[in-house]
Amino acid sequence: MAMKVYGNGMSVCVARVLLCLHEKETEFELVPVDLFACHHKLPSFLSMNPFGQVPVLQDDDLTLFESRAITAYIAEKHKDKGTDLTRHADAKEAAIVKLWSEVESHHFNPAISAVIHQLIVVPLQGKTPDAAIVEENLEKLGKVLDVYEEKLGKTKYLAGDSYTLADLHHVPYTYYFMKTCHAGLVNDRPKVKAWWEDLCSRPAFLKVSPGLTVAPATN
Amino acid sequence: MAMKVYGNGMSVCVARVLLCLHEKETEFELVPVDLFACHHKLPSFLSMNPFGQVPVLQDDDLTLFESRAITAYIAEKHKDKGTDLTRHADAKEAAIVKLWSEVESHHFNPAISAVIHQLIVVPLQGKTPDAAIVEENLEKLGKVLDVYEEKLGKTKYLAGDSYTLADLHHVPYTYYFMKTCHAGLVNDRPKVKAWWEDLCSRPAFLKVSPGLTVAPATN
Repeated sequence: MAMKVYGNGMSVCVARVLLCLHEKETEFELVPVDLFACHHKLPSFLSMNPFGQVPVLQDDDLTLFESRAITAYIAEKHKDKGTDLTRHADAKEAAIVKLWSEVESHHFNPAISAVIHQLIVVPLQGKTPDAAIVEENLEKLGKVLDVYEEKLGKTKYLAGDSYTLADLHHVPYTYYFMKTCHAGLVNDRPKVKAWWEDLCSRPAFLKVSPGLTVAPATN
Repeated sequence: MAMKVYGNGMSVCVARVLLCLHEKETEFELVPVDLFACHHKLPSFLSMNPFGQVPVLQDDDLTLFESRAITAYIAEKHKDKGTDLTRHADAKEAAIVKLWSEVESHHFNPAISAVIHQLIVVPLQGKTPDAAIVEENLEKLGKVLDVYEEKLGKTKYLAGDSYTLADLHHVPYTYYFMKTCHAGLVNDRPKVKAWWEDLCSRPAFLKVSPGLTVAPATN
């Protein structure tokens, strides 16, 4: 039975999982969750994810949440299919992939998610973005991208010369960020710009991006 | 040659790695880094970690940073030694360990690190903590611990009935949190309280905790 993914393609965290499934050329069923009707807060959904967030993955008797735990599981289960996203054959190369995945989690994501929240989600709620929060996090994001610019001058992708989960995890938030007036933060750094253009020219991205047309849900 | 860990035991992120090394009963050398003299911002250190943070791990020709990438590498390299921290023998059990490790990264850590920063680091800098930030993050932390209370009513540890990286990653910040006047957030939840008491009675913790006597460095 194909894996089931509960969620909507406009959510950055769901898109992260969908990108991984397409890179792995794996069949799956996308089960929509009506976030506007708060169906992710119903007991039936909370029994799958007590934090009430999408995505949730079901694979037979296994229920997973947290998008990066899901991508790790899919990449491991289908390690010999599609793109090698984890460099599983070499423990040290696999460790480098995890390292840059952690950089995404603990340096890139906190800064960019705060900017996207202020610039896209807050206006949708009819409120005014907090300029100080935007400014503070753009500065943090710039420093992270400075490190990336240097790294991408040495290797084509973050964890080496092939595309891995470490790159993939960046895609959905960067997609929304490039729609803002701060896209120069990426475009002004030649190596980061080339990396982003490479990332969003991949067939898996072209399959997922049509869903990324509405503001992202924060989860 | 034994692995080298650059950093100081008072840092939460270094302590996370030391806990893992002790659980794995692995020899290592701790190389102190003088954070007060900013030795982590010197070119020689930045060549190991461009973010200028401890810990850094060196294992022969491999240099790693990001504490959770380091623990994953150590746990994988020594998977058949000491405590089984990843349940590597079963892909679905391993996925559950990753899931709850991600919960620590994306739910627990942002809230507790903000509280510790305000209550312990800010006063050390001679400034006054921002009460609104403390309050906001205590509320978030309480909601995370509500989920843990329910989960720990079903299994002894977060990812099942054995201790894994998913639990271990929580230890250093929780140690400092329990020194604050908000320890009731843990103690008022019986299952979370019992889990914490179990975690800090482990031999590995008893080896690492003497280093955790000064305020943590934020990294």
